[in-house]
Amino acid sequence: MDPSEFNARCSIARTLEVVGEKWTLLILREAFRGRTRFSEFRDALGVARDILAARLTVLVDNGVMAKRAYRDENSREREEYVLTDAGRDLRPVLAALTEWGDAHRRLPEGPTARFVDRSTGAPVHLVFVTEGGELVDPALVTSEFTEAATL
Amino acid sequence: MDPSEFNARCSIARTLEVVGEKWTLLILREAFRGRTRFSEFRDALGVARDILAARLTVLVDNGVMAKRAYRDENSREREEYVLTDAGRDLRPVLAALTEWGDAHRRLPEGPTARFVDRSTGAPVHLVFVTEGGELVDPALVTSEFTEAATL
Repeated sequence: MDPSEFNARCSIARTLEVVGEKWTLLILREAFRGRTRFSEFRDALGVARDILAARLTVLVDNGVMAKRAYRDENSREREEYVLTDAGRDLRPVLAALTEWGDAHRRLPEGPTARFVDRSTGAPVHLVFVTEGGELVDPALVTSEFTEAATL
Repeated sequence: MDPSEFNARCSIARTLEVVGEKWTLLILREAFRGRTRFSEFRDALGVARDILAARLTVLVDNGVMAKRAYRDENSREREEYVLTDAGRDLRPVLAALTEWGDAHRRLPEGPTARFVDRSTGAPVHLVFVTEGGELVDPALVTSEFTEAATL
């Protein structure tokens, strides 16, 4: 199969088409922290306006964020950006990136953020399990092609 | 805190410094499939030689891949690229990207790859658990700042 055709059918490549540009995953990080407004993203990230606008447009066009109108008192109506269900499903991507950085790019002062269960405050982490829920050693996890890869 | 200083201390941003460039995660995908040679990566990805060389250099410089000498019969010594332990620890990042693509960028013919337990062949997926190993609903997972974020 031609590489470009194969990549078009790979879920990693297809996800990176949506979130693979510089800044996009950091915008999503801020969205998970509850930021919704253009100015909030800009101030938190220090990213140029035009790049931020372009990245938000891609996220909206791909159904990861949705635009919603809001109006502050004495101000014209503006739009804010909120995560959709598909956007919230990116949480494991951010958690996996966080865990690798925590393990392999450790800072003396420790991690600046951690993932927790909102209902209990308990710290959580990602693990591999079988469909029956049994824990699998990540060193044993490998990827294999399915029949769809050879169609 | 200044955004650039804060980003320098965020594990997501620090991980993206290593794997955030276009092609890098696809190179790692191929490495997990057992490819090690420059020509194998190039043929599998259809990526330009200079970009591939630059990305591999970043991965080696960051300890994600290591160069190893090999020599085919009647040929000069060459170098191949193998995942280090730190590189193999990126498996959950690739799995998380795969799962999102499988769920939200589904193709009619289904996924082209799946993650399995090498010792049993059982399909595996990522879940959030507490430190005690209890499963946590991903919709309840949130991130919170630690004390280190305010130092």
